[in-house]
Amino acid sequence: MMPGPREFNREAIPLRRELHRHAERGWEEFWTSAFVAQRLGSLGFNVLLGDEVIDVDSAMGRPPLEVLQEARERAAEWGAPADLLDRMGLLTGVVGILDTGRPGPVTAFRFDLDAVEVWESRDPDHRPFSEGFAALDDGVAHACGHDGHTAMGLVLARWISQNLDALRGTFKFLFQPAEEGVRGGRSMVQRGHLDRVDVLWGLHLGVGFPSGTVGAGCSDFLCTTKMDVLFRGVAAHAGGAPHEGRNALLAAASAVLGLHSIAPHGGGASRINVGMLRAGTGRNVIPDRAELALETRGASEEINAYMESRAMEVMRGAAVSQGVDLEVTLAGGAVNAESHPELMDLVMKKAVHLEGVERVEREGRISGSEDVSWMMRRVHDMGGRACYIILGADTAAGHHNGRFDFDEDVLGVGVALLASLALELAGSGR
Amino acid sequence: MMPGPREFNREAIPLRRELHRHAERGWEEFWTSAFVAQRLGSLGFNVLLGDEVIDVDSAMGRPPLEVLQEARERAAEWGAPADLLDRMGLLTGVVGILDTGRPGPVTAFRFDLDAVEVWESRDPDHRPFSEGFAALDDGVAHACGHDGHTAMGLVLARWISQNLDALRGTFKFLFQPAEEGVRGGRSMVQRGHLDRVDVLWGLHLGVGFPSGTVGAGCSDFLCTTKMDVLFRGVAAHAGGAPHEGRNALLAAASAVLGLHSIAPHGGGASRINVGMLRAGTGRNVIPDRAELALETRGASEEINAYMESRAMEVMRGAAVSQGVDLEVTLAGGAVNAESHPELMDLVMKKAVHLEGVERVEREGRISGSEDVSWMMRRVHDMGGRACYIILGADTAAGHHNGRFDFDEDVLGVGVALLASLALELAGSGR
Amino acid sequence: MMPGPREFNREAIPLRRELHRHAERGWEEFWTSAFVAQRLGSLGFNVLLGDEVIDVDSAMGRPPLEVLQEARERAAEWGAPADLLDRMGLLTGVVGILDTGRPGPVTAFRFDLDAVEVWESRDPDHRPFSEGFAALDDGVAHACGHDGHTAMGLVLARWISQNLDALRGTFKFLFQPAEEGVRGGRSMVQRGHLDRVDVLWGLHLGVGFPSGTVGAGCSDFLCTTKMDVLFRGVAAHAGGAPHEGRNALLAAASAVLGLHSIAPHGGGASRINVGMLRAGTGRNVIPDRAELALETRGASEEINAYMESRAMEVMRGAAVSQGVDLEVTLAGGAVNAESHPELMDLVMKKAVHLEGVERVEREGRISGSEDVSWMMRRVHDMGGRACYIILGADTAAGHHNGRFDFDEDVLGVGVALLASLALELAGSGR
Amino acid sequence: MMPGPREFNREAIPLRRELHRHAERGWEEFWTSAFVAQRLGSLGFNVLLGDEVIDVDSAMGRPPLEVLQEARERAAEWGAPADLLDRMGLLTGVVGILDTGRPGPVTAFRFDLDAVEVWESRDPDHRPFSEGFAALDDGVAHACGHDGHTAMGLVLARWISQNLDALRGTFKFLFQPAEEGVRGGRSMVQRGHLDRVDVLWGLHLGVGFPSGTVGAGCSDFLCTTKMDVLFRGVAAHAGGAPHEGRNALLAAASAVLGLHSIAPHGGGASRINVGMLRAGTGRNVIPDRAELALETRGASEEINAYMESRAMEVMRGAAVSQGVDLEVTLAGGAVNAESHPELMDLVMKKAVHLEGVERVEREGRISGSEDVSWMMRRVHDMGGRACYIILGADTAAGHHNGRFDFDEDVLGVGVALLASLALELAGSGR
Repeated sequence: MMPGPREFNREAIPLRRELHRHAERGWEEFWTSAFVAQRLGSLGFNVLLGDEVIDVDSAMGRPPLEVLQEARERAAEWGAPADLLDRMGLLTGVVGILDTGRPGPVTAFRFDLDAVEVWESRDPDHRPFSEGFAALDDGVAHACGHDGHTAMGLVLARWISQNLDALRGTFKFLFQPAEEGVRGGRSMVQRGHLDRVDVLWGLHLGVGFPSGTVGAGCSDFLCTTKMDVLFRGVAAHAGGAPHEGRNALLAAASAVLGLHSIAPHGGGASRINVGMLRAGTGRNVIPDRAELALETRGASEEINAYMESRAMEVMRGAAVSQGVDLEVTLAGGAVNAESHPELMDLVMKKAVHLEGVERVEREGRISGSEDVSWMMRRVHDMGGRACYIILGADTAAGHHNGRFDFDEDVLGVGVALLASLALELAGSGR
Repeated sequence: MMPGPREFNREAIPLRRELHRHAERGWEEFWTSAFVAQRLGSLGFNVLLGDEVIDVDSAMGRPPLEVLQEARERAAEWGAPADLLDRMGLLTGVVGILDTGRPGPVTAFRFDLDAVEVWESRDPDHRPFSEGFAALDDGVAHACGHDGHTAMGLVLARWISQNLDALRGTFKFLFQPAEEGVRGGRSMVQRGHLDRVDVLWGLHLGVGFPSGTVGAGCSDFLCTTKMDVLFRGVAAHAGGAPHEGRNALLAAASAVLGLHSIAPHGGGASRINVGMLRAGTGRNVIPDRAELALETRGASEEINAYMESRAMEVMRGAAVSQGVDLEVTLAGGAVNAESHPELMDLVMKKAVHLEGVERVEREGRISGSEDVSWMMRRVHDMGGRACYIILGADTAAGHHNGRFDFDEDVLGVGVALLASLALELAGSGR
Repeated sequence: MMPGPREFNREAIPLRRELHRHAERGWEEFWTSAFVAQRLGSLGFNVLLGDEVIDVDSAMGRPPLEVLQEARERAAEWGAPADLLDRMGLLTGVVGILDTGRPGPVTAFRFDLDAVEVWESRDPDHRPFSEGFAALDDGVAHACGHDGHTAMGLVLARWISQNLDALRGTFKFLFQPAEEGVRGGRSMVQRGHLDRVDVLWGLHLGVGFPSGTVGAGCSDFLCTTKMDVLFRGVAAHAGGAPHEGRNALLAAASAVLGLHSIAPHGGGASRINVGMLRAGTGRNVIPDRAELALETRGASEEINAYMESRAMEVMRGAAVSQGVDLEVTLAGGAVNAESHPELMDLVMKKAVHLEGVERVEREGRISGSEDVSWMMRRVHDMGGRACYIILGADTAAGHHNGRFDFDEDVLGVGVALLASLALELAGSGR
Repeated sequence: MMPGPREFNREAIPLRRELHRHAERGWEEFWTSAFVAQRLGSLGFNVLLGDEVIDVDSAMGRPPLEVLQEARERAAEWGAPADLLDRMGLLTGVVGILDTGRPGPVTAFRFDLDAVEVWESRDPDHRPFSEGFAALDDGVAHACGHDGHTAMGLVLARWISQNLDALRGTFKFLFQPAEEGVRGGRSMVQRGHLDRVDVLWGLHLGVGFPSGTVGAGCSDFLCTTKMDVLFRGVAAHAGGAPHEGRNALLAAASAVLGLHSIAPHGGGASRINVGMLRAGTGRNVIPDRAELALETRGASEEINAYMESRAMEVMRGAAVSQGVDLEVTLAGGAVNAESHPELMDLVMKKAVHLEGVERVEREGRISGSEDVSWMMRRVHDMGGRACYIILGADTAAGHHNGRFDFDEDVLGVGVALLASLALELAGSGR
């Protein structure tokens, strides 16, 4: 018989707190990956790491190599085993595979590993601080609940590995790096990990759903593209020889106005934002460098593609206007995707009977972008079924806020729900 | 013996008034050209017309052919002989050549034929109106004194033709079309008319110098380039399908800001102005057309070239940004040029003795652009000497004002001055 | 018994052609108003004209008085009786009221009178041209079908006046000027004409619905505001004294970029368009005048109000930036409005039995703005019911196109439908 | 008899190197001020410090107080005596006064104390590095020669104090903080130190003049204003609620375009530069903060005032457009000033006889801004005479470059020249 949420919580909560303390930024989750890999390995999983997990050419928004190097060194200091770090190289993320030995479907679960660039509260009211599991490093914190996701994944993996007789087919655990900024998902798809998956489950806790509720499926992911932009001009003395300069700041300012004035799409909502601009050095020097961080969004892939291509035109034009060079780097991206109605029905049916669940809504709403969308789309394209679940959880503050914390009791609910779904679709009948 | 200014005036003033009544815009001076050609022909000059005068590929800012056609028809209605109009085709301007038969220098005089797009005053105080020689047509008037210039040219030509014994070498009269907007000068240079000129005289009346003064040479011509610009996009319904449009007005607005923010040149004064913008039709339609009229200026040719090339970059960039097409037409241009110091000295010497002249300044100032500059430069490049004279004249209002009129008594002074200069440098000694 | 569509057409089609020939722009419908007033008067209606119809302070986008004067003189030339023109003054539009003498509801019908600023095709394929009823004047044509609307109104008025026994309550015919540009509707509401209306019917032919179809109600009117904008600066010579100018064109260009970059509203679709810009005169003069025509739209009144107030901020800022004056004139506007579901049901029920109607859709879509919305809203606010019907009609070209023409046979369908609706809700039972 | 340049150099060079090692930014020259004060005190000067030197309300571009605090602590670590630091408070700069006891003029000398924000080269070819006197701190270096100026000031002070018999009147040594960015000069004028000065000497080494040359006077100081600008808006989620934001980055971008498109002044050269822009944080957040650093310049005070007031208009307009707040802080400024012709003549006469001087030009050119201009203007306004000398010096790289170094042998020339000038105008005749 399957244990209830409370039993799962005894295991999940300490894991979550350990993960919370070791918060790491996207693409820098070396300690976290090692922690996950060690556990999966000891449970008998076939563990993939480094470029077995990630297609490096599809990885978006990775920090400079020296930053990755530093992050790896910090993980080593925190006790990550050298052999696992060696296997990773400079790529984080883990895939664990366990075969029941019995014919059956490939069932995959996706969890995300990364924390957020935010300063965690040191207020006595903030439980991670008062109970001693606040983030070790400054400026990075698990303020979006991915620590909870990963903890659930580890408990679920443990339960599956100990109940193999009751199951059939193959189980695949995808621990994704760099979900924040929608940077990592696509690279696991490109590495082939979603190609023969029959059923994919993803989930998020919180996002406005209170404890006791479940969103049985979610389909409102926004398409988005994230770009880092550099205009490179020529410096000159602004008083003596202004005509010798090529003004990167003027190019950037002109681009900003142009980007924000891209015509909306008649077919549905579109968005653009230049969230950051850094340009110039000295007051009396024509600026020779300007950096922008921007994003486009669209209700559909067509609309986002329209925004993206118009943005490129605007920036190319701004560069031509000022005679400066333009470099655009893809820093992230996600597509839209739909949860499969059959799986949504199944979640409705199963969730309603779980202890701790009081209300189940058929359409969860995330109202944003999630790069699980690449995975869901791939599974559907290959004939499988995918579903994204929202696990209600009371939170102490909004996501990405330094005071964010969540009701840990929901972790057991999540594990129990995923376990029951696995049994339903890949049970051996024993 | 040479007649004095008063005698010349008897002939010059009626001519000026006849020309004033028949004011014609630049490139449309069909009646005026015929009037000049007829007189030169009757004086024994070899008269060139049409493409004998103008290199059509170098002619800038010509109006559409149907406008030229209409102007020619109006000239015919005003009595211009059909055979002369036939010789002109659609090109105005006249060159008249008279050879003394004696070896000697080629002496050239340049006068301009065109009127200005301005509504002539119908006020009783405005002499051309009260004395019945105001412009026949609405919206065009001799408000810059070119009627006076042409009248002086015709009187001088008459005097030379009747005093050939006292002269040597060849005399060349250049009656240039389209000086306003600096459009016609270059095309006469390109046709070769300045190639073997030993001495070139040009002049302007007024420009801030009162009657009784003369500016003996002028060298402060500003380099300038005039451009007509068209952005061509795609119209679309602004409510229903804004993304289908290509917004020519946005391109133009962005270009205007970019043009006005071109960095000044460290080497000297530079200017740019977008003087006119017309874009769009309906309030609810994405504008698919935007027209601009602009000009650049520079203290030197290098500076003007810098402004011009930066302006092209800015406009190309604006077009790229909005995905629209760009057409730039050269609508006019002038270079800088210097009056030859020897000729300036000579004007100083001669002018001071003329009846009606009280003060001579060695450096006249025009503080603007004049396309005689192309001619002066060509003459100097080929080893000749050129000089531009300012003939002081009291005026009733500023140049290009609908109430402009000038003290006609200065016309005789101008003819007498030019005649005495001709005698000095190309006199036969008889 | 009520006649069928064919019989109504015998009367409606000649009327429509007479109206088509005498196409008049919005606020200039003097001939058309006189034509309508004459007929209503002869049918026994109490006819209101001039400021009995229009609240002049609420009239938006009226042309200058001299234009109205000219239009009135043209109407007189076309035969409009002097006494009716006298009653109008300079305000067009007609209200006709007929009381059955029996207690009952106030039933109102609204029709629009104005034509569009477009050149009517002179192609032999264009029926109004080949059959001799093309617009008498150039540059204005009934290219939106309002001639058909008015013709239906006149036939319906005739039928009602001759079937008073079968009816009860009061009938009110509202012939509105200046629907194009959504300029006239509000002024009839402000004059009080909708204050005690129990049932209001409005309609439009065509708009994408083919002949044989009917849209039983319509609720997707977009809120919109139309503005005419003038920036007034100071001219200066662009070469000599650029610092003395106040550049109205720069202000306008900056405003255009700012307006198009207003952030979209998170609550639903928003739009803005600067459809027209005219600035400057001479190439070498700092432009001292710039005129813009723009519109905002929003899915709700709140969203449109957001766009409008942000647009005002942007323009005020642009004026401050360049030290120029700003004048903004309200040139038109419409709100959103919903068709009453009971009336929609009634149209469904009645339309389906009419000869010539094959398909009825419950929700017509106009996907634009219509200033009948002010009237519908007023009726609903006062406790009445309003409904907007789309009368399908094949068209030869899109609305507002110079080749627009429509299937005249639908006119009789429209009259029959409105007559049957009147009988249903205001029948005397006889 | 006065010693020659070589003898002065024995003293000046070690002093310059000591100062070079202890490079301090503008307003942070605590160690340098203490070093100067100690020496002047020991020579018998009356030494003023802190608010005896600086009018704090007129001090421009001071860093935050915590930065000043840190700088003062560093100076203490470097050995600056506590009592002197106490007297300074948080204000740097030194005035030293020495009275000969004999009636005579007030003779003032001005030297500047501050270093530049630049990383000093660690290349073996860079003498300060190879000979061990490179700047102790990173990111700040004496790359403009002010270390040389201060060293000359100290040697001159020593010579004067030991030759009081040969002199008359009073000597005033002004050691100014924060010349870089033209921030400190005005505050010493406002403190009254220039009010009764009969003769003021200032100087700069290098600036394009090679060793062996002297510029006898300089008058081409550009007027300039430095501004720090902050736009403060409201953050919002760029996807979900963009209409709730107030976009400070858009305001800044619009301001940048507006600032760079301010019309040039017809009366002479004008300049503007936005040298730095920092805005926004997250990619998906509407930026609520944008900081700009800018400067205006003008050939005359009127022109700079025009640029400054137009810049304010443009920024205010940009703030209005986006509904954001604007804060502008004056960060620096200088005026124009002329060297007195009599003093220029005197420098010509004296310099030409100095050992090591080969060529003297009457008009040195600095082609930039220097806030000694406030002092020179004050002296002239009060009836005194002021002169700025350029002391030629070969340099290893341009001013403000990390590899800047200069020919130290010119220091003795400078001291000798100033000493001989003092003797000439304030000699006792003994």
